[in-house]
Amino acid sequence: MAVKFSIEGVEGLPEIAGGADLAALIAAATDIEDGDILVITSKIVSKAEGRIVQAADREQAITDETVRVVASREFDGGVTRIVENRQGVIGAAAGVDASNAPDGTVLLLPIDPDASARALATGIRALTGARVGIILSDTLGRPWREGQTDLAIGAAGVHVFEDLRGSTDASGKPLSVTMPCVADEIAGAAELVKGKSSGVPVAVVRGLGHLVGDLDLPGARSIQRPAERDLFRLGADEAYNEGYRDGFDESQAEAAVAASE
Amino acid sequence: MAVKFSIEGVEGLPEIAGGADLAALIAAATDIEDGDILVITSKIVSKAEGRIVQAADREQAITDETVRVVASREFDGGVTRIVENRQGVIGAAAGVDASNAPDGTVLLLPIDPDASARALATGIRALTGARVGIILSDTLGRPWREGQTDLAIGAAGVHVFEDLRGSTDASGKPLSVTMPCVADEIAGAAELVKGKSSGVPVAVVRGLGHLVGDLDLPGARSIQRPAERDLFRLGADEAYNEGYRDGFDESQAEAAVAASE
Repeated sequence: MAVKFSIEGVEGLPEIAGGADLAALIAAATDIEDGDILVITSKIVSKAEGRIVQAADREQAITDETVRVVASREFDGGVTRIVENRQGVIGAAAGVDASNAPDGTVLLLPIDPDASARALATGIRALTGARVGIILSDTLGRPWREGQTDLAIGAAGVHVFEDLRGSTDASGKPLSVTMPCVADEIAGAAELVKGKSSGVPVAVVRGLGHLVGDLDLPGARSIQRPAERDLFRLGADEAYNEGYRDGFDESQAEAAVAASE
Repeated sequence: MAVKFSIEGVEGLPEIAGGADLAALIAAATDIEDGDILVITSKIVSKAEGRIVQAADREQAITDETVRVVASREFDGGVTRIVENRQGVIGAAAGVDASNAPDGTVLLLPIDPDASARALATGIRALTGARVGIILSDTLGRPWREGQTDLAIGAAGVHVFEDLRGSTDASGKPLSVTMPCVADEIAGAAELVKGKSSGVPVAVVRGLGHLVGDLDLPGARSIQRPAERDLFRLGADEAYNEGYRDGFDESQAEAAVAASE
């Protein structure tokens, strides 16, 4: 367990264009040490990977990126869709976003953020000789609580959970269900230096080297809870309406049987 | 926007007993500077405030702390209740927890975590002369994602949101809906040095002084989204069952009207 760590924003990165060699650009922009964890805003990975479409195609892009609609809400002039996207992440608009995208365009999330993270970790480890971990972050809202936090949508070379199951608390009692999602905590911490508008898309986390590991550790996909095990797999209104239809139909069916007897 | 900050665990605090002067103990345990944010595990505040009951009374304590049941799930030999507690926080078992509690007891959350945070901020500011912010943290699970993160359940003297609404991104477009919950991000970051079992219940965050402010800033209660505005105010099964009953009853009522005509 670290007693101290620091987080520093990486300044001076150029605007990222399609095909950019992000690993080389990041390695050149800052000193990187063994055990560092680099938190990279997924937007610049999307740009480097050319995951960009015309703004006019935004609604279609959201539909294309959507695996499953979880909830939706109408507001003045539109509908917000909370969906599970192809990456397994549940969030608004499938991560399709105009902010920090070139004018007239929207950015999609990387196709496979864990694979992108692994490529970056491999590249930066090779270029610097430093054993680093990589987390790709995105800004996401959440149920029950206002505002957004940055969370890990891709990871490589870093433990996404600190598995305390089986260990004990300070008084010796087992911590049976505790499994902190350190990747999400690190992604959120990095937002505090990266911000949304400051042009600082990368942060270096130093002092948490005990969380850095092999490149074949489970990625951020392992954070996603399968829908069938999720108590909140569907919005309350959507679930209510589904139940209402089923209950109504069941009553009608029973009445039809009774009438035919 | 900070370019760098650090988080350090405060070691050497004594075991906290009922009536302990936490502000004095924390001020004595570490150097505190202007602009520091202290993240304090709510458990030690509960202990100082005597929020402790016999383990045999755990189920009753959960019921007493519960304002509203959001969802529940049966598992081998028990039921997990996800509830909104008196503090407005939605989580498992209303925050009633045996870990790090004295043997045979369970800890309840502080009655009013924002008030506790305000008292600590007032006390530590008076003792040290340093303008500090205080965040009380608790470990909470969440929908959609496995594992837990530490979140802010109490706050004083610190902005809980960094309100970017109305500001612009790096390319000049308005960030219309972005409002990072910095208090939650800071609480999660502090977990990375505090851990669950290391006996380090306080962390000092240095370098985010721009988020420190007056003692009358909105507390962590302002993070809670009112249920009526929450798409996930009720578990999917609970909402489905409620809809099913209503749909069934409506069909029966319609049939009764038809039969009487």
